[in-house]
Amino acid sequence: MSFELTILGSNSALPTSNRYPTAQVLEVPGRCFLIDCGEGTQIQLRRNKISFSKIRHIFISHLHGDHYYGLIGLLSTMNLLGVKSDVHIYAPSELKTLIQPQLDFIRGEMSIKPIFHPLNLKKPQTVFESKNIEVLSFPVKHSIPTVGFLFREKPKQANIKKEMIKAYNIPLAQIKDIKAGADFETEDGRIIPNEKLTTPPPKPKSYAFCTDTAFHPPIAEIINGVDLLYHEATFLEELKDLAEKTLHSTARQAAEMAKLSKASKLLIGHFSSRFKNLNDFKTEAREVFKNTELAIEGKKYII
Amino acid sequence: MSFELTILGSNSALPTSNRYPTAQVLEVPGRCFLIDCGEGTQIQLRRNKISFSKIRHIFISHLHGDHYYGLIGLLSTMNLLGVKSDVHIYAPSELKTLIQPQLDFIRGEMSIKPIFHPLNLKKPQTVFESKNIEVLSFPVKHSIPTVGFLFREKPKQANIKKEMIKAYNIPLAQIKDIKAGADFETEDGRIIPNEKLTTPPPKPKSYAFCTDTAFHPPIAEIINGVDLLYHEATFLEELKDLAEKTLHSTARQAAEMAKLSKASKLLIGHFSSRFKNLNDFKTEAREVFKNTELAIEGKKYII
Repeated sequence: MSFELTILGSNSALPTSNRYPTAQVLEVPGRCFLIDCGEGTQIQLRRNKISFSKIRHIFISHLHGDHYYGLIGLLSTMNLLGVKSDVHIYAPSELKTLIQPQLDFIRGEMSIKPIFHPLNLKKPQTVFESKNIEVLSFPVKHSIPTVGFLFREKPKQANIKKEMIKAYNIPLAQIKDIKAGADFETEDGRIIPNEKLTTPPPKPKSYAFCTDTAFHPPIAEIINGVDLLYHEATFLEELKDLAEKTLHSTARQAAEMAKLSKASKLLIGHFSSRFKNLNDFKTEAREVFKNTELAIEGKKYII
Repeated sequence: MSFELTILGSNSALPTSNRYPTAQVLEVPGRCFLIDCGEGTQIQLRRNKISFSKIRHIFISHLHGDHYYGLIGLLSTMNLLGVKSDVHIYAPSELKTLIQPQLDFIRGEMSIKPIFHPLNLKKPQTVFESKNIEVLSFPVKHSIPTVGFLFREKPKQANIKKEMIKAYNIPLAQIKDIKAGADFETEDGRIIPNEKLTTPPPKPKSYAFCTDTAFHPPIAEIINGVDLLYHEATFLEELKDLAEKTLHSTARQAAEMAKLSKASKLLIGHFSSRFKNLNDFKTEAREVFKNTELAIEGKKYII
């Protein structure tokens, strides 16, 4: 299973003439997750040729405007397009109060049906689960209640070696148990250990989204071993005091989190509008965590 | 006095990858009027280097999302930037109900103070007046209550000819009356007619904004003689039935309105997303009204 992440916006709150506020799309086979929905998300979806009708699950990290002001426009457009589906919105509970008046004002029957799922802002929680994927939310540390999200493939079963089925004459009925980890007892009573019969399953893929947040060590345990970590880096170390005051992170701190959580790769974003050139962010983070990339709008990152 | 109109967005409701929903800025000396505020207005303001702090008056034609979904983001950003001023919003009364929950959710003291002025949706009304400028709203014909706006310079006084002051020895005290139209009586009782003493004032400038609307003849009388008319042209004549059904106009109908209202120039916009090439709009309109231009984003039109 491949995870394909498209960055729609990776700027912080104040608009610039060429960077959009936070929004990203994570595509896994058969599912398309929208994560945050800053103003302009719908135009960025168009530019990146992502069909609106594929979006059934929207995750909103917190209720600062640069993370949700694009939601009403997106829902309204899905409705104008006649998309007929439930749209699940996982967000702090107040979101419903904030946009319901606007939803109510859209006259006539809505073709989409927004379903609000209030997030637990105090502790980790499984917010979505399918056969292959689960999504966890977990608290991060910001000026208002904010969560991160962890998207992970469910652990897969081991693969049974075909030559072993033949060699030990393993009956079909037992294959399921062996895939799940059982040993096999031959007709003459020998125990064949599971390791000999199977090859281990591929490591489940995972993606963690952490913005907006100060450097917050408890996150590391939750996202431990993640394949790709998106972590905010609003500032450079030269503005560390401002990062602390506003409960944001520096590029260096984002890299520290990648290291602490044993991530394979780090993607940094949510850049403050004051920085025109983003290369310094990459340089600063790479001093601590080499496999760091900038989250560039319109770019795809594949896990 | 010059009127400078900047088009920030001239597309209709469905987003395209390169055209924004309705928003424009009309600058007159000392004032900056924002007209409609579709999603993305703040990024378009940045791109066009128009300072957010100059915007004190916002006019919203109606409450379809593509005309107001950018407002909360703009107000929020003005607040983040610490702009300290009243911001007057002229809009259908429900707008306040729709965005007040989001305004309330912006924690802490707001540096800006939004002041809502409910529009009369049934008859023409002066909604703003300063020494030099007045703004009228007037009903147009759409699927929900919608107004157009007429921005016009107040009539100026005539200029008194300097050589006449000398020739007839006109006392200072009478100059004001003569500028306002009075004749002058000389010491020996001769009446000098006003036309001989003055040159007529320049024609007051005017700009009319009409979107969204079907072709609606009563508008012509209100905006009669306007210098520049922005009129929606969502469709081409080939989709006239759809225009009628959705209470929008075709390019030809926009041109008919320019002709009927004796406008000097016509600007058409609010193009349906289905049209990639806009030249056909210009061609169609020019068959009826020659001095027609397309409203192109980022372009300035000077009256």
